[in-house]
Amino acid sequence: MDGPTLPTYSGAIHPDMQKERDSASFQRDEMTLLLFDGSEALERKRYIESIIASDPHFDQTGRCTLSPAEAYDLSIKRSVRWVAIQEKYNLYQPDDGAVVGRCMNQDVGLFIHQLMFIPTIERLGTEEQKAKWLPIARQYKIIGTYAQTELGHGTNLNGLETTATYDEKAQEFVLNAPTLTAMKWWPGGLAKSCTHVILIAQLIVGGKKHGPHCFIVQVRSLETHQPLPGVTLGDIGRKSSFDAIGNGFLIVDHVRIPRLNMLMKYAEVTHDGVYNRRGNPKLTYGSMILVRTKIVEAASYEIGKAVTVATRYSVIRRQGSIDKNGPEVPILDYQTQQHKLFPGIAATYAFKFVSLRLKTLYLKNEANLQKLNFTLLPELHALASGLKALTTREATLHIETCRFACGGHGVMLQSGLPDMYNKFSAACTYEGENTVLLLQVAGYLMKTLSKAQAGETIQGLGAYLTEEPQSSWSCDQADQSLNAQLIIDAYKHRAQWLTRKAGEQLAQKMGQGLSQQQAWNKSSIDLVKASHAHTQYFIVKAFFDGVQHVEVSQDTAAILNTLSFLYAIYHIEQNSGEFIADGYMSNEQLSWLHNHYLDLLAVIRPNAVALVDAIDIRDEFLQSTLGSYDGNVYQRMYDYAKTSPRNRTEVHETYYKYIRPLLKGMIAKL
Amino acid sequence: MDGPTLPTYSGAIHPDMQKERDSASFQRDEMTLLLFDGSEALERKRYIESIIASDPHFDQTGRCTLSPAEAYDLSIKRSVRWVAIQEKYNLYQPDDGAVVGRCMNQDVGLFIHQLMFIPTIERLGTEEQKAKWLPIARQYKIIGTYAQTELGHGTNLNGLETTATYDEKAQEFVLNAPTLTAMKWWPGGLAKSCTHVILIAQLIVGGKKHGPHCFIVQVRSLETHQPLPGVTLGDIGRKSSFDAIGNGFLIVDHVRIPRLNMLMKYAEVTHDGVYNRRGNPKLTYGSMILVRTKIVEAASYEIGKAVTVATRYSVIRRQGSIDKNGPEVPILDYQTQQHKLFPGIAATYAFKFVSLRLKTLYLKNEANLQKLNFTLLPELHALASGLKALTTREATLHIETCRFACGGHGVMLQSGLPDMYNKFSAACTYEGENTVLLLQVAGYLMKTLSKAQAGETIQGLGAYLTEEPQSSWSCDQADQSLNAQLIIDAYKHRAQWLTRKAGEQLAQKMGQGLSQQQAWNKSSIDLVKASHAHTQYFIVKAFFDGVQHVEVSQDTAAILNTLSFLYAIYHIEQNSGEFIADGYMSNEQLSWLHNHYLDLLAVIRPNAVALVDAIDIRDEFLQSTLGSYDGNVYQRMYDYAKTSPRNRTEVHETYYKYIRPLLKGMIAKL
Ligand SMILES: Cc1cc2nc3c(=O)[nH]c(=O)nc-3n(C[C@H](O)[C@H](O)[C@H](O)COP(=O)(O)OP(=O)(O)OC[C@H]3O[C@@H](n4cnc5c(N)ncnc54)[C@H](O)[C@@H]3O)c2cc1C
Ligand SMILES: Cc1cc2nc3c(=O)[nH]c(=O)nc-3n(C[C@H](O)[C@H](O)[C@H](O)COP(=O)(O)OP(=O)(O)OC[C@H]3O[C@@H](n4cnc5c(N)ncnc54)[C@H](O)[C@@H]3O)c2cc1C
Repeated sequence: MDGPTLPTYSGAIHPDMQKERDSASFQRDEMTLLLFDGSEALERKRYIESIIASDPHFDQTGRCTLSPAEAYDLSIKRSVRWVAIQEKYNLYQPDDGAVVGRCMNQDVGLFIHQLMFIPTIERLGTEEQKAKWLPIARQYKIIGTYAQTELGHGTNLNGLETTATYDEKAQEFVLNAPTLTAMKWWPGGLAKSCTHVILIAQLIVGGKKHGPHCFIVQVRSLETHQPLPGVTLGDIGRKSSFDAIGNGFLIVDHVRIPRLNMLMKYAEVTHDGVYNRRGNPKLTYGSMILVRTKIVEAASYEIGKAVTVATRYSVIRRQGSIDKNGPEVPILDYQTQQHKLFPGIAATYAFKFVSLRLKTLYLKNEANLQKLNFTLLPELHALASGLKALTTREATLHIETCRFACGGHGVMLQSGLPDMYNKFSAACTYEGENTVLLLQVAGYLMKTLSKAQAGETIQGLGAYLTEEPQSSWSCDQADQSLNAQLIIDAYKHRAQWLTRKAGEQLAQKMGQGLSQQQAWNKSSIDLVKASHAHTQYFIVKAFFDGVQHVEVSQDTAAILNTLSFLYAIYHIEQNSGEFIADGYMSNEQLSWLHNHYLDLLAVIRPNAVALVDAIDIRDEFLQSTLGSYDGNVYQRMYDYAKTSPRNRTEVHETYYKYIRPLLKGMIAKL
Repeated sequence: MDGPTLPTYSGAIHPDMQKERDSASFQRDEMTLLLFDGSEALERKRYIESIIASDPHFDQTGRCTLSPAEAYDLSIKRSVRWVAIQEKYNLYQPDDGAVVGRCMNQDVGLFIHQLMFIPTIERLGTEEQKAKWLPIARQYKIIGTYAQTELGHGTNLNGLETTATYDEKAQEFVLNAPTLTAMKWWPGGLAKSCTHVILIAQLIVGGKKHGPHCFIVQVRSLETHQPLPGVTLGDIGRKSSFDAIGNGFLIVDHVRIPRLNMLMKYAEVTHDGVYNRRGNPKLTYGSMILVRTKIVEAASYEIGKAVTVATRYSVIRRQGSIDKNGPEVPILDYQTQQHKLFPGIAATYAFKFVSLRLKTLYLKNEANLQKLNFTLLPELHALASGLKALTTREATLHIETCRFACGGHGVMLQSGLPDMYNKFSAACTYEGENTVLLLQVAGYLMKTLSKAQAGETIQGLGAYLTEEPQSSWSCDQADQSLNAQLIIDAYKHRAQWLTRKAGEQLAQKMGQGLSQQQAWNKSSIDLVKASHAHTQYFIVKAFFDGVQHVEVSQDTAAILNTLSFLYAIYHIEQNSGEFIADGYMSNEQLSWLHNHYLDLLAVIRPNAVALVDAIDIRDEFLQSTLGSYDGNVYQRMYDYAKTSPRNRTEVHETYYKYIRPLLKGMIAKL
């Protein structure tokens, strides 16, 4: 590997920042190694980052002032540049693409091609189909996207209206969007970039409906880029997330494609119009779980960015004093400020450990699936869904809090925070809307519960639901309460309790004569709560377990330990009613934990900057005047402001149009 | 009054929307009258709205695709047009300006001139100063802003670094910003629009510092609009809120102004350099309270906009079915969706009642102040601060939830929701940062508590703190628990309990040897909780009281009653730990309330659309394809998308620059 392997930072370190770094009780480098899975992976990440950071094509300096057109142009330019860089440096390892995505804050115009188009063909194509499509896709002779969502339907796949009707005579499928709401809407890159799509349409063979299936459809000419006959394409307009990508709409009007353009690994339509399922379609679930694993990891990274900015800013920003007539203090000295930021730092670390654990389970399941063993699937599916929902929501809240924690300056785009919020809050919606996902988790919980109540033995992640809940928290002393097992017990009890409560609610509504579905709907608030508790139990356990098993020096282990307790107690306090309502915890026990929480904040305080440094985000990618490594906040802010397009002229043209006439008493009369 | 007085809506009403309107159990018009303080005020509001809606200068159709430069230009154009309209239609009543601000979603470039510049002179100027400045300001011969915040200081006013040093010989003040962080940063309209500012600077007379005072400073030539000598001005760059306004920075380098440019009503510097305070500066507090009253009202309106969009969309959007094989249902039929939206509807109404109550108290206090009676001031100041903090935070959460409730389409700028969120979430920061405000409330609470403990009688809003808290909730039956007084009692108890707890925490820390200030900081998380509880107690009480005293038909009263219970129970559930931790409420009692909550959702369901209709926001100002009155969501979305600038050409220029070379295997080698 050539190129620099360590981040470089401009400017001298602000003495206040240096003081913070000097006060850390652990080695930042050891922590970074841990967070990035060892030295090989970390070196590769830094290697790719150094290439990107030194390539002017990827410069993000002006990103706050781009027009939508410029942003789109740049996002495509970057995608294309990335293809060249991949080739030159041979960057084809599985995670390499993700690194560039993160560095570019996801403004990479063609990423759905690599993220969804190619993998769908790999997964659902027959060997012949793969041989036909994958080489040209990998060489970018075609560019694709994944077109599932329609104007009228996202969550409810069965409601998709686009049809693919088999015409046996012609051996073709006729694709048609019969209504306004049937048009595809949202696919990334569809607006102006793609030549092909994976189209999800309702398969109809011989008049019979077979539900949604995947078809490869060419939508633009490979010569002129004009839409093909029967195809209407366009941009859906601006969005607060992924605006640079050019999400598009697509109407197919009796578009014909060859029969073999249906992806046929798990379902085929023979030339003479016979529909066969083949293999086990459950085998495809794995990839959905993989995507959610990646989102959990992304949630960690996105919170990491925000806390890096807000924490570094908070040691430079001085505002008010604590002691009467004392000097102004860095705002991070305020307990309320620590309360805003440290739970976010803890979540960054928590979700890192959780995503590792999820990945392990995913791999185990993948191995099982190869042997057609599906036992792990339901619990893993529920887990990945729940984790996707909780981590994206929590990330959104933390990023928002970081914005608040930076006061007015956090509202400036140059802080980076508004963009982080807008971009990632959309993750609560895409790849499975969070409420809908939690209701799916609830489905798993209720099934598990009734199996348990029917006396079946449950194994795996749901097994604890069969245990008889403890009636009270077995901790009788304040100084014993900082105990991982005891805290995990409390989370377990809460999940058991809320799951049973939701189950009872469901049974009660059915007892009142409601259908199972109606009762489900009338219990859904409680069902979501149970799913939340179940998933959070997993998170807390995975974080504690992970921290207890890392092989690191004592100092590093100690601060990780602190973070895991802080994380767990923070969420107990956020949901305290659910821990005490049935008498499990007492007010006194809660207040022991509260006091520990306050103490833990103080332990983290001198380590805060080192903890965010360890997340290892280069200034070039953080793109925040408030959050840079050197802490030279105010000079950067001023320098950045001076580049504002509105500052190009001392007297703005608007003055001549409106302000001068107003001042001169010459505004147009009505 | 001429012009249409009723909103007009385009297009035929979607039958699903009509069905919802028909299902309401109350008269929408009666509710609207109530929300807008009777027929006279409502008619005036609608009159102004009809003028604005029919004036093409105020057309907001393309607002999602404006460049920053265009947005600034348009916001100034509108301000100037408003001046003309004011004159023509004689729109100088106190609330007239607020109407146009709301209609234009605050994109009115010069609003600080009317909101802050003129009122500050009115309040702090002597009679001579008012006579000199107000006429030219009102006639827009000068345009001003309010320049307080600096790059380095916002919250801590005493830390402001800009100085105003009196030069007795010249009878002038010398204004100077000695450091980078002393530059003014943030004032609205300062960048490119204003000719004058009210500058807040540290007054120095004869070497002695007298703290922050206000000075009128001309910053640009009235002839050329060029910055005057010694003045550096510019735009601070893009922000997620108020981006169109052109917030600016300002550096004064030994700028001289006449002595009489200091606003001297409450403090003067005589020509021979003697500094005198005069009158009671407490008299100026009233206006700060007034601004916060307006923010509480704005919070109501902003949630109102968001729930209007999300509720209307949710009766048109059909996604999935409840009954097995049943038809797709509007998503508002899902209990989880109701749980997302109805608390927001309730908050819209709650904050309306709260702001009325606050205004009444404000007027009472104003009358007192005229008689130099300051008794109400501390509690009112605490109340207004707390209400500003709680209502802005709650509004931000509800707007965000509305965004989530619209799924992917809520991410589109054409939904209006991202902009509502970004704009109003900044209100958590400006006009007093929320945490800082809540700590001020805590100051009032702790003072009141120690007075009470010293045996003083407390009157007014803090009186309840002197009562002995009840040990348990006096409600023994499920069907009695839906009782306003009982629920108010519960809120009262929680506030008492948390205030005492914070007080004990404070005392304990001091007992451990910490200074009062250090102890304060170490207790600040708990202090904020107490402030939250105190303020929420007021909100709930004001809402219940208000609803119980309105003179409306039974049907309208009934739905208002439902909303007030929903609001109160929702927040009990959100903070349940604080209602049960000390044994006040039992788990069983909580579950009674929970069941009521679920029932209340069902009562609101058929009234939801009418409740948002009653908020009376015209399509022209809502600017949301998802939320328009007629419910023709999908056609509007498609029509809007087609106007996206990226759709101007079928083949985008980016294709020729990057995509074609990529497809043809001709990307630039490295
Ligand atoms: C930035 C972004 C990028 C995207 N990229 C792509 C892409 O490349 N390709 C693609 O095909 N799609 C894409 N999408 C679309 C995305 O997959 C959908 O938006 C997502 O699946 C959510 O579905 P929806 O929009 O239909 O939400 P809806 O289902 O309409 O959700 C609206 C509300 O209804 C509620 N709701 C819906 N169903 C139920 C139920 N059964 N029970 C209870 N409540 C319910 C939800 O909880 C939510 O509150 C993208 C979206 C975004 C925001
Ligand atoms: C959209 C917008 C428009 C504005 N317009 C104007 C304008 O026209 N004129 C003008 O003069 N200003 C304006 N401002 C500036 C605004 O008044 C300040 O941003 C606001 O007062 C907050 O102060 P700050 O930015 O210094 O925040 P900070 O005080 O720096 O807050 C940062 C963090 O520090 C914490 N903190 C600060 N002090 C304490 C303390 N004592 N105890 C505990 N925690 C503390 C806060 O809680 C917060 O978490 C505007 C701001 C915005 C966002």
